[in-house]
Amino acid sequence: MYKIEKIQGGVCAAKGFYSNGVSAGLKPNAQKDMAFIYCEELCDIASKFTTNKMQAAPIRHFKAKGVFQTNFVLINSKNANAMTGKAGIEDIEEILSFAQELHQNLHNPVMSSTGVIGVRLPKEKLKNGIKLFELKTANPTAAAEAIMTTDTFSKEIAYRITLDDGSIFHIGAMAKGAGMINPAMATMLCFITTDADIDAKEMQRHLDKLTPLTFNAASVDGDTSTNDTVMLLSNKKSGTYHKEAFEKALYEIMLHLAKMMVKDGEGATKLVTYRVTGARNDEEAEKVAKALSDSLLVKTALYGEDPNWGRIASTVGASGVEAHEEKLTISFEDVCVYKQGENLFDEANEAKAAKVMQRDEFTIYCDLGIADGSFEAYGCDLGYEYVKINADYRT
Amino acid sequence: MYKIEKIQGGVCAAKGFYSNGVSAGLKPNAQKDMAFIYCEELCDIASKFTTNKMQAAPIRHFKAKGVFQTNFVLINSKNANAMTGKAGIEDIEEILSFAQELHQNLHNPVMSSTGVIGVRLPKEKLKNGIKLFELKTANPTAAAEAIMTTDTFSKEIAYRITLDDGSIFHIGAMAKGAGMINPAMATMLCFITTDADIDAKEMQRHLDKLTPLTFNAASVDGDTSTNDTVMLLSNKKSGTYHKEAFEKALYEIMLHLAKMMVKDGEGATKLVTYRVTGARNDEEAEKVAKALSDSLLVKTALYGEDPNWGRIASTVGASGVEAHEEKLTISFEDVCVYKQGENLFDEANEAKAAKVMQRDEFTIYCDLGIADGSFEAYGCDLGYEYVKINADYRT
Repeated sequence: MYKIEKIQGGVCAAKGFYSNGVSAGLKPNAQKDMAFIYCEELCDIASKFTTNKMQAAPIRHFKAKGVFQTNFVLINSKNANAMTGKAGIEDIEEILSFAQELHQNLHNPVMSSTGVIGVRLPKEKLKNGIKLFELKTANPTAAAEAIMTTDTFSKEIAYRITLDDGSIFHIGAMAKGAGMINPAMATMLCFITTDADIDAKEMQRHLDKLTPLTFNAASVDGDTSTNDTVMLLSNKKSGTYHKEAFEKALYEIMLHLAKMMVKDGEGATKLVTYRVTGARNDEEAEKVAKALSDSLLVKTALYGEDPNWGRIASTVGASGVEAHEEKLTISFEDVCVYKQGENLFDEANEAKAAKVMQRDEFTIYCDLGIADGSFEAYGCDLGYEYVKINADYRT
Repeated sequence: MYKIEKIQGGVCAAKGFYSNGVSAGLKPNAQKDMAFIYCEELCDIASKFTTNKMQAAPIRHFKAKGVFQTNFVLINSKNANAMTGKAGIEDIEEILSFAQELHQNLHNPVMSSTGVIGVRLPKEKLKNGIKLFELKTANPTAAAEAIMTTDTFSKEIAYRITLDDGSIFHIGAMAKGAGMINPAMATMLCFITTDADIDAKEMQRHLDKLTPLTFNAASVDGDTSTNDTVMLLSNKKSGTYHKEAFEKALYEIMLHLAKMMVKDGEGATKLVTYRVTGARNDEEAEKVAKALSDSLLVKTALYGEDPNWGRIASTVGASGVEAHEEKLTISFEDVCVYKQGENLFDEANEAKAAKVMQRDEFTIYCDLGIADGSFEAYGCDLGYEYVKINADYRT
């Protein structure tokens, strides 16, 4: 059939893609804060953007272009270029024109930003950053670092897909995102590159299908940002493609990055999967799973490593979907604490459940016992660090 | 017309109502943990309960009775009697029967509980508490203290209403609630008594109208509990009533208690009013106001006393209602920081806005500039204390 192997190389794993990150002085202490993705060939593009009505300037700029191909994506951190009106768009145009003057062969360059809202881009700094770019450099890790904001580690991943006939294509990606994740790709940026022979429409179908199951199933704090972006670029250089293999690898990539964002959630110490089953339908299961991953009471109980199943039951009940006390079952991994009306939370089970909660990663199972609806959401705990990070983010 | 005056007396301000709180050993250190409200006459009842599907046993017990009158409400803290199934109902019946055996003249007694979920009521302790009750005692403050959980101060209020003809009636109330407030009366209990000559139907109309504007407009952490209850009892002893005056006084009582709950929100240091205007309609204004009061990013910015208006704009955009960057206006009290696309957040304005945020109470104004929809919601900040309280609530 086909073989999918994890490889190094991030957004440069696919043939023909270049990327690097530089320090343009947006962040202090010479930290990297600007990145690019470049390709000599024009690429097809598929994308998903935030559902926030206050769309940041780079997203409005992108959307205004309509259907197009590009070979250059410029990304900056520290400034979101959001709530900047027409001036925000003009700033992008000025910066991208500058890049085109300085570097040959940039077609329909686009920009993506993340950081503080409501402040104009520091154009001179960005231009100085562009001057530092050497386009034919493949340093994907530097790029992944440059797009970080409150992230504590950079996020990249890549796969090589080998088909039966020996042909090979690659998909690679980088992402940033730590706070404001959920439920609609909040302050996350994700750039995916591939040399598979796939066009924009087909890529868009994949993104539309997989985004709800990955990025939109991940929650750090239930907020949705002005800048969320997933971009998928194909240069078709491998000359080969396999739908099922592509989808499978892309799903793994998006799920991995979504989980890494949650794991890196501001102040998070745990990555928790909420596996909801037995709901009236998948939509209701999704509602419950997301209510659980967003609940402050559940999140603080996780932080306290307290198997407080009552808060889980209460959150299920509050989520608005059909649920019944006598049909509900709750387990922490394989430790069932409440089964269809029967309270199994004795001392022995409490100790076992508490042990599960000490893990860095675990699954909470919640079966509504009604029908076959199921969904999996990904969340984290909320502790002192979250407050600390967010109480003085701007300063 | 009529005169409304604030008076002392809480739930005993209305003629004929008795109330007290005792220590039954549910809480440590001889703290009060059981309360009653008693009246020699039978009272009409109106009520509002949680929308949580996992309704606690006392609520299921109350609802199963259908229409009835009562003269005795028993309230305990520390244990919610939720997720306790049929046994939870049987426990209530046993306890209330015990109360009826011990004390003469209790008709259709009802119970209300708040505290930890999923643990059976300690019946013997509760019975011992009932033995301590002396029904004809008027100690409303002791009752208000007994129903507290994580509350840091007790909440009571009362009004005397004097009509033109010299006739007088009273409305008094007590409430508890500190965490899990919103958007549907989460873990709050509120008991209101009146000697006005008003029947159950008329009281219910008042509660239905005023609850959305008061308790359901208040948010501490966006969670909705299994036990939320508002109960309004009338013994008609004053023989008088005035619809407008009653509604006005009741609104003041409910709004005051709702604000006190938010002010006492777990770890909260500020009470913030979100006044949203200019929305497409009132429903959309409500959505925005509640999104603001629930946003973790806004709440942590409040805690940090950081006038981060970008997070407000982003939350408006994420709320799902019609909103436009170029029509939005945001003010902290009278300090306008963003006006219809124009960023007014210069150094002087930032300093002024930061000063507003240092207050204990203030209003954030958010005008969407579209139509006439408006709503006011009440929220608090979220700081380290919230995490501390909720990370080890059970222990």
